[in-house]
Amino acid sequence: MVPFKLIYFKEYTINMEHKLKQLKNILAEVADIQGAANLLEWDQQTNMPPKGAEARGHQLGALSRLAHIKFVAPEVGKLIEDLLPYAEGLDPDSDDARLLEVTNRKYKKSVKVPSDFVAEFARVTTMAHGAWEEAREENDFSKFQPHLEKIVDLDRQYAEFFAPYDHVYDPLLDTFEPGMSTTAVKKIFEELRPQQVKLIQAIGEQEQVADDFLYQEFEHQAQLDFGNEVITKYGFEWDRGRQDEAAHPFTTSFGIDDVRLTTRVQLNHLNSAIFGTFHEGGHAIYEQGIAHSLARTPLADGASLAVHESQSRMYENLVGRSYDFWVYFYPRLQEFFPNQFAKVNLETFYKGINKVEPSLIRVEADEATYNLHIMLRLELEIELMEGKLEVSDLPFAWNARMEEYLGITPTTDTEGVLQDVHWSSGLLGYFSTYALGNLISAQLWEKINEDIPDLSGQIQSGEFAGLLGWLRKNIHCHGAKFKPQELVKRATGSEIDSAPYMRYLTKKYGEIYTL
Amino acid sequence: MVPFKLIYFKEYTINMEHKLKQLKNILAEVADIQGAANLLEWDQQTNMPPKGAEARGHQLGALSRLAHIKFVAPEVGKLIEDLLPYAEGLDPDSDDARLLEVTNRKYKKSVKVPSDFVAEFARVTTMAHGAWEEAREENDFSKFQPHLEKIVDLDRQYAEFFAPYDHVYDPLLDTFEPGMSTTAVKKIFEELRPQQVKLIQAIGEQEQVADDFLYQEFEHQAQLDFGNEVITKYGFEWDRGRQDEAAHPFTTSFGIDDVRLTTRVQLNHLNSAIFGTFHEGGHAIYEQGIAHSLARTPLADGASLAVHESQSRMYENLVGRSYDFWVYFYPRLQEFFPNQFAKVNLETFYKGINKVEPSLIRVEADEATYNLHIMLRLELEIELMEGKLEVSDLPFAWNARMEEYLGITPTTDTEGVLQDVHWSSGLLGYFSTYALGNLISAQLWEKINEDIPDLSGQIQSGEFAGLLGWLRKNIHCHGAKFKPQELVKRATGSEIDSAPYMRYLTKKYGEIYTL
Repeated sequence: MVPFKLIYFKEYTINMEHKLKQLKNILAEVADIQGAANLLEWDQQTNMPPKGAEARGHQLGALSRLAHIKFVAPEVGKLIEDLLPYAEGLDPDSDDARLLEVTNRKYKKSVKVPSDFVAEFARVTTMAHGAWEEAREENDFSKFQPHLEKIVDLDRQYAEFFAPYDHVYDPLLDTFEPGMSTTAVKKIFEELRPQQVKLIQAIGEQEQVADDFLYQEFEHQAQLDFGNEVITKYGFEWDRGRQDEAAHPFTTSFGIDDVRLTTRVQLNHLNSAIFGTFHEGGHAIYEQGIAHSLARTPLADGASLAVHESQSRMYENLVGRSYDFWVYFYPRLQEFFPNQFAKVNLETFYKGINKVEPSLIRVEADEATYNLHIMLRLELEIELMEGKLEVSDLPFAWNARMEEYLGITPTTDTEGVLQDVHWSSGLLGYFSTYALGNLISAQLWEKINEDIPDLSGQIQSGEFAGLLGWLRKNIHCHGAKFKPQELVKRATGSEIDSAPYMRYLTKKYGEIYTL
Repeated sequence: MVPFKLIYFKEYTINMEHKLKQLKNILAEVADIQGAANLLEWDQQTNMPPKGAEARGHQLGALSRLAHIKFVAPEVGKLIEDLLPYAEGLDPDSDDARLLEVTNRKYKKSVKVPSDFVAEFARVTTMAHGAWEEAREENDFSKFQPHLEKIVDLDRQYAEFFAPYDHVYDPLLDTFEPGMSTTAVKKIFEELRPQQVKLIQAIGEQEQVADDFLYQEFEHQAQLDFGNEVITKYGFEWDRGRQDEAAHPFTTSFGIDDVRLTTRVQLNHLNSAIFGTFHEGGHAIYEQGIAHSLARTPLADGASLAVHESQSRMYENLVGRSYDFWVYFYPRLQEFFPNQFAKVNLETFYKGINKVEPSLIRVEADEATYNLHIMLRLELEIELMEGKLEVSDLPFAWNARMEEYLGITPTTDTEGVLQDVHWSSGLLGYFSTYALGNLISAQLWEKINEDIPDLSGQIQSGEFAGLLGWLRKNIHCHGAKFKPQELVKRATGSEIDSAPYMRYLTKKYGEIYTL
């Protein structure tokens, strides 16, 4: 005789498995629509003829609406609600348990924000983007100011949808770094900032290294070919992706097996194409490494923007700007550009690509100064959200902090507070992910070097399989199963920490600038 | 005082205008989803990495389903039903009246076919396609035969959804040529066939022209550049479209202002890239010429496949293979390929590109023999649908007719009945559009020459604006407002007629082969 309870349990399980399948079917359809929308955006930036923009706007609008409507349907809420108790009986690290957790979190976020607000936010940021372009063009902050005031106001309203919160900035951060708190980020950066400022001052007192050889004429196709040779060695799989050119490089995917990076080539400066390709290659390799079992679910994504950035920064900087790397690849680069590098030796080249120089523009900053650009933005954003800083005082606050951290002051707002697109798009909370990505990259790097003692030798021989294997196993395959702090802790034993990055900078630049 | 009746009428009109707007909104969303799906298909054939196919299948499936569900919704049926009486009060040639007529026709077709049938048709043709590939590879018709039997059976079932009909083949034709009847097509072709067979026999008795100079090595990029220079002159607008390479050339659009053609380059044969580009350019120029007022409606399309083909064939053949054209462009081609054409004069080149030679493969056929390949297929399809021919007898019937029309017999089924992909995809009713396109192109050509007496001189001077203006006004701008017969009658004064095409062939080849 089968006891009654077991039958009941079996039926319950079958019923729940059926509901889970229903939910997965809906999520798969949402993922399919989003994958299609990603292709439309990719095409817009790589191929679309200028006048195709209007129809493309309609098409992207239709797909976004459809994906949103499908995801926030009450049916989805009901399925999640029914399945959460069932999830408690599952292995908490299993795909299904994590899928339910992540889907529940996303669903709750989506339904908390009224669609009227979403529409208003879209309207305001569309206007703001145009105003920002004009303001930057004409070096006139006053043209952007009223728009930014509205955006800050809307972002404060947004935060209120998630009240109670510990800090008004938390809901913004959470959009890009699930589970990350303002307190945690501030603590990390406050430890880091004085050390980084000190390092840059010390470097400033040393003799500068040469990098003029990077500013010569480099043949277009050869720049692309060299970059692609490198990312092929890194492990990018060309039957599961491709590379194209775009004015503003990015990486996107339409599924785990169709991942596309883009590169911008500058004929008179080598850095853009090659380090840009290494960087986007890092993003792309991450996307290609997500477990196929997560395909067409909300877990088929990076863990967060910072974790994504840790992969791109690792392949760009910790690998791609390392001495070991160029021991192997510099002779190859010299074959690609024999005239340009005939008289430049490896040491000179290595120092040149690692030149440190405080500069006004974030996207052109070197490894040592980059994070300071981010910290400045983060602090200003937090003060704006807290109401401690008025938008009208922003240019002054920006310039004062530039002087304090980097020792230079913008002479125009175009080169200062107006330089980034993010705020005009309403993206407060985004910038810190760039710096967190740097920190995570160094933290992972220390652990990888522990686990693979011969890593340096492998890279000197152009062997990247060991590195890729480690990243695949500890980071990539998990997709968005774990929040960034949890993922980093699982991989390294501790939460996000600035010390490894500071150790990395100190050692590297100590050698280059003989500090 | 406003009389009661006027108020009533006003309210009725306002109400109807509101309903029309509702309908247009739904149709616009359907068009947006279809435009997105077209981009996914374009990318699949131009850019997609091999392993991207699985995700792409899911994405295309999702978009097709969504577009279908939105279009066949009962709400759409109700709006159409309410609006049809209102349409009767509109100018019958107005965009709105035609939109309602065409939408009503499409809606009725869509709801008449049960979704179970659509799924079964997709299943059978997916299997059939694989079987056809294998059968063609192995020259073994028996492997394809059972699949084709199922397809013919399904196509017969399909026809029954539209009973009563005049002829069982009519519903298939109507899919590609709205309003075209089997009787009309048969009559057109029966007049044409004996004349065309006779012409080819007469040519066969003359001395053959040389075309060996077309089979040399031609640099890849130069082939593309020359083709693009020509279609630019034709009137293709590059800010509203682009050109890429694809294994099987095609043209598609994602809106009137984003029209994309594709080209295949063969290094050792000039024809594929240049005449292919002229051909696809013709399709693309048609799509770019549709009136913007029709955007995002079912009218933003060609009038039919045959009318579309008339535009591609006109720019490929009536223009692109004419003596006038090469008077202007041959010196330019010689600049692109100086070594290849140094010793070939204009007359020799012109005759070479117009060489007539009965051959087994339709897609390689010249202008004079092409239609016979089509007629053969049309007759076999009609007999299959009528039940007068068994699928098992098809190879024999094919070969007998090849001998009768073209004087040659395939030695294998691979070069005979298995050569085309269409039947494996279930596309019975499609082939005749190719031949009808040829006929329409010549019919329009006679009228254009009447309306523009200096057309020959203009083309000799590389002037194509007069031609384009005529086509824009009489064909392109109307989109799918008129059925093909009506459109041709409006443009030329008579319905589709084979006489102009026969006059065109007789004159052209009479001169080339001195008949």
